[in-house]
Amino acid sequence: MQSIYCSIITIGDELLIGQTIDTNSAWIAKRLNEIGIQIKRRVAVGDSKEDILHALNEESIYADIIIITGGLGPTSDDITKPVLCEYFNSQLIENKEVLEHVIRIFTERKRQLLEVNLRQAMLPNNCKVLFNEVGTAPGMWFMKNEKIYISLPGVPFEMQHIITERVLPALQKHFITPQVLHRTIVTSGEGESFIANRLIEFEANLPASIKLAFLPKLGIVKLRLSAIGISDFLMDQWFDELKTILSNILVADYDVEIEQIIFNLLSQNNETLSIAESCTGGRLASVITSIKGSSTVFKGGIIPYSIEAKINVLNVPQQTIENFTAISEETALSMAENCLAKMNSTYAISVTGNLEKQIGETFVWIGLAKQGYSIAKKLHVFYDREKNAVLVTNTALNLLRLFILHKPY
Amino acid sequence: MQSIYCSIITIGDELLIGQTIDTNSAWIAKRLNEIGIQIKRRVAVGDSKEDILHALNEESIYADIIIITGGLGPTSDDITKPVLCEYFNSQLIENKEVLEHVIRIFTERKRQLLEVNLRQAMLPNNCKVLFNEVGTAPGMWFMKNEKIYISLPGVPFEMQHIITERVLPALQKHFITPQVLHRTIVTSGEGESFIANRLIEFEANLPASIKLAFLPKLGIVKLRLSAIGISDFLMDQWFDELKTILSNILVADYDVEIEQIIFNLLSQNNETLSIAESCTGGRLASVITSIKGSSTVFKGGIIPYSIEAKINVLNVPQQTIENFTAISEETALSMAENCLAKMNSTYAISVTGNLEKQIGETFVWIGLAKQGYSIAKKLHVFYDREKNAVLVTNTALNLLRLFILHKPY
Repeated sequence: MQSIYCSIITIGDELLIGQTIDTNSAWIAKRLNEIGIQIKRRVAVGDSKEDILHALNEESIYADIIIITGGLGPTSDDITKPVLCEYFNSQLIENKEVLEHVIRIFTERKRQLLEVNLRQAMLPNNCKVLFNEVGTAPGMWFMKNEKIYISLPGVPFEMQHIITERVLPALQKHFITPQVLHRTIVTSGEGESFIANRLIEFEANLPASIKLAFLPKLGIVKLRLSAIGISDFLMDQWFDELKTILSNILVADYDVEIEQIIFNLLSQNNETLSIAESCTGGRLASVITSIKGSSTVFKGGIIPYSIEAKINVLNVPQQTIENFTAISEETALSMAENCLAKMNSTYAISVTGNLEKQIGETFVWIGLAKQGYSIAKKLHVFYDREKNAVLVTNTALNLLRLFILHKPY
Repeated sequence: MQSIYCSIITIGDELLIGQTIDTNSAWIAKRLNEIGIQIKRRVAVGDSKEDILHALNEESIYADIIIITGGLGPTSDDITKPVLCEYFNSQLIENKEVLEHVIRIFTERKRQLLEVNLRQAMLPNNCKVLFNEVGTAPGMWFMKNEKIYISLPGVPFEMQHIITERVLPALQKHFITPQVLHRTIVTSGEGESFIANRLIEFEANLPASIKLAFLPKLGIVKLRLSAIGISDFLMDQWFDELKTILSNILVADYDVEIEQIIFNLLSQNNETLSIAESCTGGRLASVITSIKGSSTVFKGGIIPYSIEAKINVLNVPQQTIENFTAISEETALSMAENCLAKMNSTYAISVTGNLEKQIGETFVWIGLAKQGYSIAKKLHVFYDREKNAVLVTNTALNLLRLFILHKPY
């Protein structure tokens, strides 16, 4: 079975002057990978007719499928549609279904319908229209010299909707796709190079058909085995060995975020959580509340960013702060314990510390409390404000996970 | 003066299977743009020798400068360095300065130095080494057929450090760069297509040398004029006209985030802020605390995610919630007023609502309070959980800005 390759072309001057970060390509890559289509290249070009045509020609050399995103919005800096008409030798004609849909959306939202919105129903006569229920710009599917070209709007949730509902099913009908195997483990507690050192022998023995990749974030390292054309059984053997070697830092043997694990644990046991976070300033709570259904396990949070708020809102004894400072084991414990009591939750986690480099050591204290038991841990940080916030948040989540599981850390 | 073009090549299988989002390209593009270098294309390829060599050859056609990021980490899935050696016909030799630096970093952080770390000091003999103070992988500068090739580590803050300290100064010495003019305005309160409609005539009259781009986010639309080779005076004339047309929704006439404006306003007046946010779950506070120095203006936050926490921690009267529900003008006002009192701040903002689609209307209430005066505003939301959280956060920030400025909304 031959591999099927896709190139992704993203269009927009904003990508080339750096005002927009391209999240669409990664999302598309993930989805296509799941159905056995490999991404060969991703290319970003500006809103220039010449550059778009060049990219279309060039990616047609590498790929069987060319996906184009961006440049279909209602505003006039978008030139994708005219370029596609030239490339595929099309005429724009009005699509009745799309027109009615655009009118309906504006009526429902009680918003004035403009000429630019109506123009979105003008579509090339030789494309298959990929209907967009959640927005006004539909996708388009073209065929040329046995290659497939798919043009999608750049707005992420509209693009995602069309890929899921229209593109993936159509591609799976069109191609017999090979099985791509991925196995991911999530670890926390050791840096990338330490893990790499422990895996030297493992990597050396790995068959050429299996690739190992490191996906480090601050505080978390994911490792992924990937292979095409080998059996699940063989893959699992190597995966089991990988898990055994890294068992002491293993968080999960599938691709998952730690906050989702925490949510699942709490949810299973009908337990609840509260958060008292100072230096992370709401980041820890916002990670927890990004999980769908989190309101069933998360009672609430307090962000005592000032010493005043630590004392008045969270009732940390002034004496504790005076004796030990606001960044101490004692303050972290008091924050966690008082948060637990105030929020009446099963567990509470606290964070207090410095994220910006101090003279001497820069560190935070992370406190954990449940009824009758609390503990705190010191974490040194080495990066800048933003990176330290991520490192502390990820580390705190892993400590909370271990605390819930009664595991040592 | 000729335009100078750069292509950015990012390397890594993780980019093609969608496990990593490329933020480096946007950052590099922004920095190069500021010194008058235009990005022609951005290309992502996998950890494959053939694909990297292809990309190097191909981008050399388009660009004067080729910047390569990724594939220089200590782990063995990185193959960039050997490929560069082949492309530039180099031998790896040990660089003493880099070796000493790597050893020093590991000693300082009290971490074990591994063979893989030492390998980072092995560098091509015909490159200029771009020293990396903040990490172990240095950058490399090659010349071939009058084109410049710059290879950088993929870790964002290391890459950023080398670009700022080494690459930009060297490029400015090497080229006489043309002046690129950008003018950005930030608006809030109207959607992209509405704004586009108001600008039809403006756009039609715009000289061909000035481009207008829309950069919409949920709740905020930025607009940017860009031009090469025109005078500041002419650019300002068009920019003034743009500002005049959109004066009713204008937030700022430079590229800035609303949270930074709020911080600046509070800081200037020695005023303070507190936040009581329910459905946004810490996101609003984390946006405010992402600002450097925010501890001087932000007293703290409360995240009363449960009704229990609204009553017990934030002292919203049970009667208010029973009579009007937790998502009501009355609850939003009580949350803001009680937060103001508890945190003893100059201003307080509250958010309570639903982010996931409900039967009937889906909406949030945003409350604003200062001593002796409070007000609340209802906001309808139309997207999914995550997008609504962004929309609500951005809208709340703009309402707070207007509240602080005593402006109507």
